[in-house]
Amino acid sequence: MNSSSPAALIGLDWGTTSARAYRFDGDGRVTAERAAALGVQQVRDGRFAQALDALLGEWSADPARRIASGMIGSRQGWIEAAYVACPADLRTLADRLAFVDDARLAIVPGVSTRDERGIPDVMRGEETQLLGAIDPQAEALVVLPGTHSKWAHVARGRLLDFRTFMTGELFAVMLEHSILGRLAQSSEDALRADPDAFARGVQRGLAPGALGHDLFGARTLALHGELAGHEVAEWLSGLLIGREIADAQRWAEQRGLARAAVHVVGSAGLSARYATALAHAGLPVADTPADAAPRGLWRIACAAGWMD
Amino acid sequence: MNSSSPAALIGLDWGTTSARAYRFDGDGRVTAERAAALGVQQVRDGRFAQALDALLGEWSADPARRIASGMIGSRQGWIEAAYVACPADLRTLADRLAFVDDARLAIVPGVSTRDERGIPDVMRGEETQLLGAIDPQAEALVVLPGTHSKWAHVARGRLLDFRTFMTGELFAVMLEHSILGRLAQSSEDALRADPDAFARGVQRGLAPGALGHDLFGARTLALHGELAGHEVAEWLSGLLIGREIADAQRWAEQRGLARAAVHVVGSAGLSARYATALAHAGLPVADTPADAAPRGLWRIACAAGWMD
Repeated sequence: MNSSSPAALIGLDWGTTSARAYRFDGDGRVTAERAAALGVQQVRDGRFAQALDALLGEWSADPARRIASGMIGSRQGWIEAAYVACPADLRTLADRLAFVDDARLAIVPGVSTRDERGIPDVMRGEETQLLGAIDPQAEALVVLPGTHSKWAHVARGRLLDFRTFMTGELFAVMLEHSILGRLAQSSEDALRADPDAFARGVQRGLAPGALGHDLFGARTLALHGELAGHEVAEWLSGLLIGREIADAQRWAEQRGLARAAVHVVGSAGLSARYATALAHAGLPVADTPADAAPRGLWRIACAAGWMD
Repeated sequence: MNSSSPAALIGLDWGTTSARAYRFDGDGRVTAERAAALGVQQVRDGRFAQALDALLGEWSADPARRIASGMIGSRQGWIEAAYVACPADLRTLADRLAFVDDARLAIVPGVSTRDERGIPDVMRGEETQLLGAIDPQAEALVVLPGTHSKWAHVARGRLLDFRTFMTGELFAVMLEHSILGRLAQSSEDALRADPDAFARGVQRGLAPGALGHDLFGARTLALHGELAGHEVAEWLSGLLIGREIADAQRWAEQRGLARAAVHVVGSAGLSARYATALAHAGLPVADTPADAAPRGLWRIACAAGWMD
């Protein structure tokens, strides 16, 4: 099937900094893909219709339905798709789609939960990846590493609960704006592969400790000549990922998932880091498909009855 | 005694962003004080001699000995005064003074330690405040709140051990550069007194939790309308101070200081925050003198035998 044939569905993974579009055939296979730096943050003055046309290009004239997930459904997005509370399954997400009628576009709602202290937690876009990554018959512990890493418990097509860790943002902000970056070498050098420094950071992160104290080690180890300038960023990355895994393990244990295999859904580079850190923690890593987002979009469209 | 009489000693508290000078009479009383925005960071091209003259002004001609503590003794300072390892007492600090002969200036060394995982920790300037704040016969648990808060165990004029928490820097960096600041109101409004939001943050911080997750609450509570824009900064401040106190308590317990009164040595505003948070934790707060730095400088000069 070439891109001039009509599509069965057009799916959009529309985030803060970038947007990606997928054409599906009637069997749910992705036949073509487009990407643009047209994230919600780049769209000025609410010109989302123009951004969508630019993203879709020649597909704009295609009569297929369109479904989007991600920050496009946030308060800063096109229209707000109110959060659905956990547990959330494909059917609930399909029932709560928000529609931009003029654009024939449905937006998948984000999902919310509360931790044991009653503090809310939220995701937007990850719910679609999670329900796309995990087989609807399976039960799984999943991590989506990133700026705000999400750990989730998925079972039989339902997102039961999840927890966010600000790992990626803490890393970037502390390295760029705190004293920890001052002894690190330029950011170009900063993340060149240094498995030993990363492993040492992971070990520190996996051990019990107070993060507000442990972070300071990225400075004191360098001051003492026990970490080279180009190793500071690696050690800090290891510390934060290791601590995330240790903290997420405590949460997983409460959910009856102690030492369960961890499904890592993310970019190749970040997934490799998590796989290494999980190995240090003695935790098995499970395979996941690379196309979690389009799979999830397709499944939600099916749950909405569009493919019947 | 007026400032034209010769001084017994001139003391300098010379930090990263500011410098302060004290004239002492022969009984160790401060008779006059000067301050300037001539911190180590502001001094260009190693022009420390000129900065010292500017700071001392008319006192420059005074023949009294000069003693300084703080970042002036760091690698970025005038000359490096190598760290002394804990336990460190007044005599050890006096024995390890670093001298800038041309300026008749002695610089107090910083102090280092290692935590139970062997990660180094350091302070510069705080050792002088600690040994100045606590009576040389007493045993005390002390906190110096700030960018890098220090908790210390002092007994009979010795600094036995300490631990750093990056509380102030985490607060500033996350509020200014992370997503947490986006729902907060302008920084002018951000820290206006809001005792309820601060108290809620403290309660969250004192309870067990994973900091990388708990931080995200500053966003999700605001997203859910459970925290107003002007309350975000207060809640975050409470979370970080509360968590620091909880973590420092575990350290203090290991040192046999469970539920000991906490001596808070800091600015009035920050000390009041810590006093409030310590009250939430059920911990008593002990009185400390306001002039910890000059007291410490005087005591070190005495230990050096200068006043004999």
